[in-house]
Amino acid sequence: MRTALKSFASDNNAPVHKAVFRAMMEANQGDAIGYGDDIHTLEAEQKIKELFGKDVRVYFMLTGTGANVAALSHITRPYHAIICSDKAHLENDECGAPEKMTGCKLHQVPSVDGKIRVEQLQPFLKSKGFQHHSQPKVISITQATEMGTVYHPEEVRAIARFAHEHDLYVHMDGARIANAAASLDASLVEMTRFSGVDVLSFGATKNGAMAAEAVVFFNRELAKDFEYTRKQSMQLMSKMRYVSSQFYAMHSGNLWLENAKHANAMAHMLAEKIKDIPSVKITQKVETNAVFAIIPPEAIEKLQRRYFFYTWDAAKSEVRWMTSYDTTEKDIEQFVTAIREAVEQP
Amino acid sequence: MRTALKSFASDNNAPVHKAVFRAMMEANQGDAIGYGDDIHTLEAEQKIKELFGKDVRVYFMLTGTGANVAALSHITRPYHAIICSDKAHLENDECGAPEKMTGCKLHQVPSVDGKIRVEQLQPFLKSKGFQHHSQPKVISITQATEMGTVYHPEEVRAIARFAHEHDLYVHMDGARIANAAASLDASLVEMTRFSGVDVLSFGATKNGAMAAEAVVFFNRELAKDFEYTRKQSMQLMSKMRYVSSQFYAMHSGNLWLENAKHANAMAHMLAEKIKDIPSVKITQKVETNAVFAIIPPEAIEKLQRRYFFYTWDAAKSEVRWMTSYDTTEKDIEQFVTAIREAVEQP
Amino acid sequence: MRTALKSFASDNNAPVHKAVFRAMMEANQGDAIGYGDDIHTLEAEQKIKELFGKDVRVYFMLTGTGANVAALSHITRPYHAIICSDKAHLENDECGAPEKMTGCKLHQVPSVDGKIRVEQLQPFLKSKGFQHHSQPKVISITQATEMGTVYHPEEVRAIARFAHEHDLYVHMDGARIANAAASLDASLVEMTRFSGVDVLSFGATKNGAMAAEAVVFFNRELAKDFEYTRKQSMQLMSKMRYVSSQFYAMHSGNLWLENAKHANAMAHMLAEKIKDIPSVKITQKVETNAVFAIIPPEAIEKLQRRYFFYTWDAAKSEVRWMTSYDTTEKDIEQFVTAIREAVEQP
Amino acid sequence: MRTALKSFASDNNAPVHKAVFRAMMEANQGDAIGYGDDIHTLEAEQKIKELFGKDVRVYFMLTGTGANVAALSHITRPYHAIICSDKAHLENDECGAPEKMTGCKLHQVPSVDGKIRVEQLQPFLKSKGFQHHSQPKVISITQATEMGTVYHPEEVRAIARFAHEHDLYVHMDGARIANAAASLDASLVEMTRFSGVDVLSFGATKNGAMAAEAVVFFNRELAKDFEYTRKQSMQLMSKMRYVSSQFYAMHSGNLWLENAKHANAMAHMLAEKIKDIPSVKITQKVETNAVFAIIPPEAIEKLQRRYFFYTWDAAKSEVRWMTSYDTTEKDIEQFVTAIREAVEQP
Repeated sequence: MRTALKSFASDNNAPVHKAVFRAMMEANQGDAIGYGDDIHTLEAEQKIKELFGKDVRVYFMLTGTGANVAALSHITRPYHAIICSDKAHLENDECGAPEKMTGCKLHQVPSVDGKIRVEQLQPFLKSKGFQHHSQPKVISITQATEMGTVYHPEEVRAIARFAHEHDLYVHMDGARIANAAASLDASLVEMTRFSGVDVLSFGATKNGAMAAEAVVFFNRELAKDFEYTRKQSMQLMSKMRYVSSQFYAMHSGNLWLENAKHANAMAHMLAEKIKDIPSVKITQKVETNAVFAIIPPEAIEKLQRRYFFYTWDAAKSEVRWMTSYDTTEKDIEQFVTAIREAVEQP
Repeated sequence: MRTALKSFASDNNAPVHKAVFRAMMEANQGDAIGYGDDIHTLEAEQKIKELFGKDVRVYFMLTGTGANVAALSHITRPYHAIICSDKAHLENDECGAPEKMTGCKLHQVPSVDGKIRVEQLQPFLKSKGFQHHSQPKVISITQATEMGTVYHPEEVRAIARFAHEHDLYVHMDGARIANAAASLDASLVEMTRFSGVDVLSFGATKNGAMAAEAVVFFNRELAKDFEYTRKQSMQLMSKMRYVSSQFYAMHSGNLWLENAKHANAMAHMLAEKIKDIPSVKITQKVETNAVFAIIPPEAIEKLQRRYFFYTWDAAKSEVRWMTSYDTTEKDIEQFVTAIREAVEQP
Repeated sequence: MRTALKSFASDNNAPVHKAVFRAMMEANQGDAIGYGDDIHTLEAEQKIKELFGKDVRVYFMLTGTGANVAALSHITRPYHAIICSDKAHLENDECGAPEKMTGCKLHQVPSVDGKIRVEQLQPFLKSKGFQHHSQPKVISITQATEMGTVYHPEEVRAIARFAHEHDLYVHMDGARIANAAASLDASLVEMTRFSGVDVLSFGATKNGAMAAEAVVFFNRELAKDFEYTRKQSMQLMSKMRYVSSQFYAMHSGNLWLENAKHANAMAHMLAEKIKDIPSVKITQKVETNAVFAIIPPEAIEKLQRRYFFYTWDAAKSEVRWMTSYDTTEKDIEQFVTAIREAVEQP
Repeated sequence: MRTALKSFASDNNAPVHKAVFRAMMEANQGDAIGYGDDIHTLEAEQKIKELFGKDVRVYFMLTGTGANVAALSHITRPYHAIICSDKAHLENDECGAPEKMTGCKLHQVPSVDGKIRVEQLQPFLKSKGFQHHSQPKVISITQATEMGTVYHPEEVRAIARFAHEHDLYVHMDGARIANAAASLDASLVEMTRFSGVDVLSFGATKNGAMAAEAVVFFNRELAKDFEYTRKQSMQLMSKMRYVSSQFYAMHSGNLWLENAKHANAMAHMLAEKIKDIPSVKITQKVETNAVFAIIPPEAIEKLQRRYFFYTWDAAKSEVRWMTSYDTTEKDIEQFVTAIREAVEQP
């Protein structure tokens, strides 16, 4: 339900940023041809091409799962395998849509911080060339990861080099790529295309948009016929201008970066303020807008009576707290007070 | 691109109704839990339950194709067959999503006006019980049809009776159910649940919303576990309040009906004004917001230089003109003038 | 159950030819590596390459449905459409396996004799390039057809020319290709590869084998990675030698052709002997080993008490009688007598 | 290719047992109705019902992968998850057929000996009831396991009790169930139905048949409509008598058990004879017809020049040696000599 106090559950609990809403309203003038053949979509595509290069191919989508799964199903055949982290959204949070839609097997790379290390990849190739086994074809990495950590561009490059040497593609789940960019102080193109990514799920929803995702192909060959995959994946919005205008609002200026920087700053502030509380143990490096921490089970219970957030791992008594573009310093201060009260009270 | 003159291509070329936009903005206050666990979604569900009965099950979706295909995949197994009209959106306009997602065969019932007659159904059952053939399981009808015509409730009842006698379900694609209701002067529940429909794709997008569809199960047994099918079908919006608030705006008063009535009235006005033009032949009964007509090929070409609309059947020189909730009488008058000029000029 | 009198139901009611059984027994010596890496499989491949050219790619399969569906799924993406006759096995007798496995839509070309005419194809292309519609990619023809008729090589060539001009592939369902070859007095390579077929489902089961099908790719590019599709389609036999030795028996000499010629001759003999019976009307040209005929409904009933065969179309009182490699002249004579008795008795 | 010396690669390298071949030849008399409606299939079904109870449902299949995947796809929906051992054939050796055909996610239980322990299962249920996650529905266990070990009936019962308490089904991959029965000295029904198994992939191929698998449903409700799933899974053989007669040969007497006992005895003899060789380390309990061992890498290479067998884990220098119903004591003696020579020579 509507949360009275700021939610620390997910950046998707935040409302839509005013500038995004305004752009949607501005697009709401008169008629526009459906399915993307409109000026707003053209303009938003232009903005994205300014970020990544004018020869990329851009397709607007409705959900993050839709972007991931449609992209992956387009660049694979059902006898392929997709390699991802065991923490990946793809693996854990898409209710089997990747398997259902691609037919592929998902291979999980064990990880603590949500990141795949290039050294972990070799063993997944031993099935190559044997007809009994799904054939590895894509490495999918999440930037920022589900654990709030980021890949440095050189890490992405190493993975991409490995992938391409072995005839694999690199997919990046960029649902929170803005937060990663803010953290790395790197440009979006450097983090993706220039690091060898072949196709990107480019998210805006979690950064202040309403429902705005895109699939961006850097490898244009791979994009061929993707319009059909999008439609068949039920991701083609008829009134497309209302998705594309969200991207326009985000990327016609620096809104995307400001939002992400602010969200990250709030997470850092939170981490800073709680790191010395004895019964709180931060469990992941705070690089973007998430703080993972272990606190006593009874403190979780108390705190959840006032604030909405997720228990990440009940067995370890670990929680996830996420900040968003509209989290305020006051929100953090109140929340820290509540944490203190929860952990300190007898 | 943005159309200077009113588009007659599709009701989805129209902008979002102001009241819908306003409701979305009102929902844009503070945080809300994602994925439907918010007050706006609860309220919108309530409104839909007031229409159909409080024991129905309601699931908000993002696209009409998504609603149709997720609903159908949930109530079938891949060895089933789905019977629909040869004019059905399901058959023609979903890029194979029904086949891909359900695995089912689609059987097409030949039709001129988009309607299935109960007398046509028996032959599709001859494969029942033979292991070599897909087993018929669902009859899917579109209300209003893709040809702008409507099923009278007794026609739906006859189809449903046939279906249930033979252990089949009835799905209704209600992308334009509002227009059908306005045409029939019938209540939504009478047209659906009381006529034997098992599951409805309940559309609002084409009637002035932005992107708002729902799957409504009248047969609650069938709804079991549908939340997983929705998610796996990539139709679960994280910031759900922005879909549900559209439904709330539509159904907290009579906006849905007023919009539909107006759109229908404009189609009738158009038909009335052109029916006596010698070189214009209206080809379908005008019951909702579409006018199908045959005009000379060169007239199509001339008219399309000024107005955006679709050639329906190039071989027959047949066009489709659609009106929407915001088509004005003046739009119609201008368009009629343009039609006259196009067909009459030498 | 075991039929005392010769079955006229299907050529798959016949037992396995002795020479085929003998070859299987000869292969049953000592150990052999599984999954096709054995001498019998190599030899059988060689025999097939002698028929079609040494650069073709050959994959042994277990069922005709398996061969058709695996081949088609390998050369399509789910957003494609497959064009076939409305009489095709693919459309009618595979329980939706094509839809389930390929995700593609099947377009049916209306036909009386099971054959597609090249003139019928153009309308199926009008959806090309529109994202809302499944994109035609394959024309699948059956040789001999399900109605016992055959395509002349020039007809296949015309279809293939059309297909390739429009970036489509040609698949041939050759479950009864031997019967077609016998009928046409044409070589297998002329009827397929030289006529522009891209991929062939090459059947032996209906011609005296036990369970022996193959997918033969003339277009080698298309064959890439097919071993994975075969395995994923559950068609990879572990003890492969027992499939491949069947092919060896069939094609090391002329057994395949002799069997087919004989079966065809028996159908011609049957047709010849009944064509002047007043209440029997032969409904299809007898070109291979099937005779379709309309006889009085009560005659069907009487005859089916003694002989096993299928009523093809109950509404028309049409039956299908099939002969096989082991049908004898005496079988035909007895059957003709029984037909006479059934139709003539009061 | 054909192996001159006995293969130790897999029990599927062995030829077909003479009695099986004989039964197939006996079935090769006259015509028989296709697709299972014949006396041989009826008789074989009877034999299997004598083993498991006359109310079970039996469906003959062509491959082990086909049996597993068709059974699992029939009892799941695509949003379900299947829990299996990380050593399972399902997970490793079916080229993604389970994912492609079921749409389900596979969860792997880590194991050393191929067995799932009931204590490992609870964590896989934590996703139950959350729409973002695939919902666990089946536990699939292999008997005997891919590592040659067996589940004791009480272990199966414990897993089944857990499964049924949580509304899950138990599938047993019984490709080598005969070897397990021989090892346990237990009846087939005790090991399966009486231990709570819901559906069994019942294999004969690896135990001396040619290609004979069956799906046996103990839970009859689950079997409803399975004939369509079998056909759609391309596993319905037209000349069914040649599969069913294999089962008849196996189970009209004790051939199945004698074959399995012998194969197991040969593995034990092998293990016994090599267990004291210093550079050979047996790595799995020898309970059926497989011996896993670590030997020096250069010994593997030498030995593989003479004998065909698989390196199981190159990193660990671990090999798998399998015996079969026709492995002789002399084969074992020769092989042991070869092993000694390979490991001992400088």
